[in-house]
Amino acid sequence: MIVGAGFAGMWAAQALARAPVEITVIDRRNYHLFQPLLYQVATAALSPGDIAWPIRRMLRRQRNTRVLLAEVTGVDVERRAVSLGEQSIPYDYLILATGVRHDYFGHDDWEASAPGLKELDDATRIRRRILLAFERAECGSDPSAQRRLLTFVIVGGGPTGVELAGAIAELARRALAADFRHIDPKSARILLCEAGERVLPAFPETLSRYAGRALARLGVEVKLKSPVTDCGPWGVTVGTERVEAATVLWAAGVAASPVARWLGIEADRLGRLPVAPDLSVPGLPEVFVAGDVALVSDATGRPLPGVAPAAKQAGAYVARVIAARVAGRPAPPPFRYRDFGNLATIGRRAAVIDFAWLRIKGGIAWWIWGIAHIYFLIGMRNRLIVSLQWLWAYLTFDRGARLITGRECEDRSPADS
Amino acid sequence: MIVGAGFAGMWAAQALARAPVEITVIDRRNYHLFQPLLYQVATAALSPGDIAWPIRRMLRRQRNTRVLLAEVTGVDVERRAVSLGEQSIPYDYLILATGVRHDYFGHDDWEASAPGLKELDDATRIRRRILLAFERAECGSDPSAQRRLLTFVIVGGGPTGVELAGAIAELARRALAADFRHIDPKSARILLCEAGERVLPAFPETLSRYAGRALARLGVEVKLKSPVTDCGPWGVTVGTERVEAATVLWAAGVAASPVARWLGIEADRLGRLPVAPDLSVPGLPEVFVAGDVALVSDATGRPLPGVAPAAKQAGAYVARVIAARVAGRPAPPPFRYRDFGNLATIGRRAAVIDFAWLRIKGGIAWWIWGIAHIYFLIGMRNRLIVSLQWLWAYLTFDRGARLITGRECEDRSPADS
Repeated sequence: MIVGAGFAGMWAAQALARAPVEITVIDRRNYHLFQPLLYQVATAALSPGDIAWPIRRMLRRQRNTRVLLAEVTGVDVERRAVSLGEQSIPYDYLILATGVRHDYFGHDDWEASAPGLKELDDATRIRRRILLAFERAECGSDPSAQRRLLTFVIVGGGPTGVELAGAIAELARRALAADFRHIDPKSARILLCEAGERVLPAFPETLSRYAGRALARLGVEVKLKSPVTDCGPWGVTVGTERVEAATVLWAAGVAASPVARWLGIEADRLGRLPVAPDLSVPGLPEVFVAGDVALVSDATGRPLPGVAPAAKQAGAYVARVIAARVAGRPAPPPFRYRDFGNLATIGRRAAVIDFAWLRIKGGIAWWIWGIAHIYFLIGMRNRLIVSLQWLWAYLTFDRGARLITGRECEDRSPADS
Repeated sequence: MIVGAGFAGMWAAQALARAPVEITVIDRRNYHLFQPLLYQVATAALSPGDIAWPIRRMLRRQRNTRVLLAEVTGVDVERRAVSLGEQSIPYDYLILATGVRHDYFGHDDWEASAPGLKELDDATRIRRRILLAFERAECGSDPSAQRRLLTFVIVGGGPTGVELAGAIAELARRALAADFRHIDPKSARILLCEAGERVLPAFPETLSRYAGRALARLGVEVKLKSPVTDCGPWGVTVGTERVEAATVLWAAGVAASPVARWLGIEADRLGRLPVAPDLSVPGLPEVFVAGDVALVSDATGRPLPGVAPAAKQAGAYVARVIAARVAGRPAPPPFRYRDFGNLATIGRRAAVIDFAWLRIKGGIAWWIWGIAHIYFLIGMRNRLIVSLQWLWAYLTFDRGARLITGRECEDRSPADS
């Protein structure tokens, strides 16, 4: 039984395609999401359908696998069963790959004012907020209210924060620039707040410095050593400065889903579960944890990054362990993450790549970033459509999916009503 | 001032691009929607972004035009001003092109159980319902509940009803066929109920008969002379037969938006306003009504159909009348609808076309239908993407946008919780 159809869960399911096992994949969404491009949905560059693929469709030919759309509410490790509300489904082996959600460091009340970006519905909600801010500024007449509507604050200078800030800057300065009459979208203030000393802290310092310069060129104000101390419908307080902003986006922290609680095991500060070298849960050899929810360290003792390649490798590894156990073969050697490098994009022809042996920045990195992401998309149709959307955007500076959809009831922010 | 950025409103705005006037376009959505393909979003064939285009983007180069995202709440014809909640904006000339919504013939309580299809959010909500019905049937074990989940009723045999029924049949029999383990999507029951004597009543009888046969070939049960007499979360009553169905879609009737109430004028049964030969409101020469909301008759005295070409022609005509008045030129001759023909598609290689001088059905009609719709899409990017999605679907039988998005709070149906 596999809970969660993200990169770890799907790669585990696919690696077990030929094993003599019966697989159940449970997810509360009907699609597998290509999270690395989610920020492009939030900034109107791609449509939700371009980066999501039905789980059933991906596993259609795998006759040993069934897919359930359901929400797991708990795990009974004694009886070896997963609870789905009232239903309960038994397992022999369990792979927990439920991923992470954004975390507000104890300030859960900030979520309504500063949504994070992890799911497709988060992305369309953020897209609505960003586009509505420009629309409301155009309709309004009070300069200070317009100023507030045209201020965008991104909290967190990791890859997601940098990508969001760059994409919003390009949206305001390019795609929207000529479309308004009363306001100048180019005058929008875009603020990236990072508590640490540099953006992209997981990258080497030279690349962080380059990313900071590239953001500044796009007109993003980067505030370093600036933790957010308060947040509400009015905006944020950064250090001691109060910034009035209608749109605040959270890219600062993540925490694992309630897996630790299900198993009754102590997790680390971020909710991640410590695991044995074969990614099983200590004391529960038939339960495995893969992906962002597992606390795995690399050779140097640092925890693995929460990136797609790490999740895919962990998923496929767990599948190998289970296949070996079922077949009575000796277990494979302990899990070891093979780091192929780290990528982040800032904007048009500006990206950074950190291979262990090579650091690239600028236009070449941007092209490699684009080609790699299209290569890693699922299915030829999505590759074609994303290529076409990007090519179009590259040539025309236009955005393909500038839609304000959904209703207000989805928002819990009083600022939005 | 133009209220409504559908076909009538947008064509009026664009026809006034060079006139010495200041134009304000008001719509409560930020996009112009290509409604003829909305049913393809509802049945997971296209993404919302493929058939919608930002109003601002379309009017970007037209410097005499501003766009407001706002909801009109009333019109003060004495003071010549449009109310947007508390705000009030004066006009010299007013074009009302607010279109229609679905109408339940006095049974507004049916809406929650039988959603209609007029807006993008309707389409994603219907898509969610259809896909969730299959998912829930797969998870369930009670055969009668599964039977109910796999029963789809479409009320109304006009073009929208026929297109929805055909598209759901193809979704169930082709795209989803191999993706489930416990249920057979091919066994889904798809019912098209029409109160009249034939489907597509606006078309010649031979084409109606062909459409009925084509639907039957796709496995759609067509029930003629079968008005719906009751409707609820459990399903519908068709004539005297009670049909248990989890998904009921409404394509039976439309009624105009509250324009008549705004103006304090008596409308026809469907809320449409009678208009003078120049499409102005009798007694209010500076107020024009264009598109589905206007009650216009053709040469034979029949009211014009609610189709895109009629709305575009009316919008462009009103623009000519206003341009002539502003320039002090004589008014153009009374509005006359030029009917270029009527199209409807049933499914793969099955469509009907009724030109005044030629009737086509089957594969050729289907190809003409497809090419015509791509030609009429706004913008080269949307044309490319829709062509690519269709070509892909044609070759693989696959659907590109099988996503269940949004939250339950958007639904008001108790059947959905």
